[in-house]
Amino acid sequence: MQFTSEQRLDGDIREREFTVGEIPGILWTPGSATTPVPLILLGQPGGMGLRKMYPRLAARARHTVAAGFAAATIELPGSGDRPRSAEAEQARADLHRALQAGEPVDEIVDRLVLPLVEKAVPEWRTTLDALLTLPEIGGQVGFAGGIIAIGIRLAVIEPRISAALLFAGSFVPGSMFDEARQITIPLHVLLQWDDEGNDRQMALNLFDAFGSTEKTLHANMGGHTGIPEFEGDAGNRFFARHLT
Amino acid sequence: MQFTSEQRLDGDIREREFTVGEIPGILWTPGSATTPVPLILLGQPGGMGLRKMYPRLAARARHTVAAGFAAATIELPGSGDRPRSAEAEQARADLHRALQAGEPVDEIVDRLVLPLVEKAVPEWRTTLDALLTLPEIGGQVGFAGGIIAIGIRLAVIEPRISAALLFAGSFVPGSMFDEARQITIPLHVLLQWDDEGNDRQMALNLFDAFGSTEKTLHANMGGHTGIPEFEGDAGNRFFARHLT
Repeated sequence: MQFTSEQRLDGDIREREFTVGEIPGILWTPGSATTPVPLILLGQPGGMGLRKMYPRLAARARHTVAAGFAAATIELPGSGDRPRSAEAEQARADLHRALQAGEPVDEIVDRLVLPLVEKAVPEWRTTLDALLTLPEIGGQVGFAGGIIAIGIRLAVIEPRISAALLFAGSFVPGSMFDEARQITIPLHVLLQWDDEGNDRQMALNLFDAFGSTEKTLHANMGGHTGIPEFEGDAGNRFFARHLT
Repeated sequence: MQFTSEQRLDGDIREREFTVGEIPGILWTPGSATTPVPLILLGQPGGMGLRKMYPRLAARARHTVAAGFAAATIELPGSGDRPRSAEAEQARADLHRALQAGEPVDEIVDRLVLPLVEKAVPEWRTTLDALLTLPEIGGQVGFAGGIIAIGIRLAVIEPRISAALLFAGSFVPGSMFDEARQITIPLHVLLQWDDEGNDRQMALNLFDAFGSTEKTLHANMGGHTGIPEFEGDAGNRFFARHLT
């Protein structure tokens, strides 16, 4: 793990860019913490890239660190400056076209999301290995955000993740519902009720499928990017209950 | 309004039983507040009566008062020591039988719930008139609890109620979906996802119907009476955002 840059946010938050092998990422830690703090992995949507997503990620990180956690995110395979995948680009274009035409997207979602999960999940785990060697990070780990399919796979196979906050999105390969049923860690699921780019019924079916005995769904108005600010606090309280 | 008894809970909560005309109720206020506090009306399920519901109501009241509010509840018409309604008793028995037999209940729900709403809502408003004359209560008013049909009607017609926390239950007369669409105040809706006595899809349809631009659904596991403790805090924060 190599740190490639460092700056301070708001005086007391340490923001460091890093690479773990070919994986670039950003780590935010409380500048003044004297004991190790639990870590929240910030998932992000695919396709946009870290640079474009930076303002939203930094806002989430600020809020997370203010609540006493460290936060980290990584560039997904095929996003940002990382090598593109011709298959993924084709699938993304096909998805866009099919959605516009109102055609079924299941097969395209499989082509787009399953390979991404296969590549991204081991990268998250490698990054986690590296992050957990840092003296400023300790204790339990949470995952927060999208892509929900990546969160599902991590929640099932990564025993160091103790709780997950998932953004409900439509594009979950049907085959992953079986994995959803295997999840046992506490889940906190956010659903934007009137998100036109989202299949609400599928999101509700997915919530129903999760195997966890402690799972909470928070549905709000405000469209795809309109998650209310108070949900940031609710997410932090969820992690505080399970990681500290 | 007449106070008929008074005691202290936990040292600092003043619990007073009262009557407003024929309506018995209980008021909980912070014993040490020096300025008027906002009021939360605690709705309760019908049929049980205040005495049987007292432990659960007192627990909710304690939590509400600890967050800086006053709390009040009243005996519903036909419950507790109040005169029974033969029609309501018949409808309740019919409902029980129909549910056991797996028969449709719409007509029975209309017979049971609509008259109750017609009687209970004016009683809540009369009680509110009386409570708002007390010097220890001031500012805005919230409604929290069941029966959801009573909460819906109050949210539509009582302008002094600024926010409502509703317990999603199945037994909402179909005709009240039109009223649900007229609600504009902020809503916080609790749904027990695996509540076998509840029609989940109807609860989701009702949430969808609410006209409010700010509405949040919190769905949890744990069966009908298993609302997690942390939802009490979430409810208080909802009211703090809108009543203070």
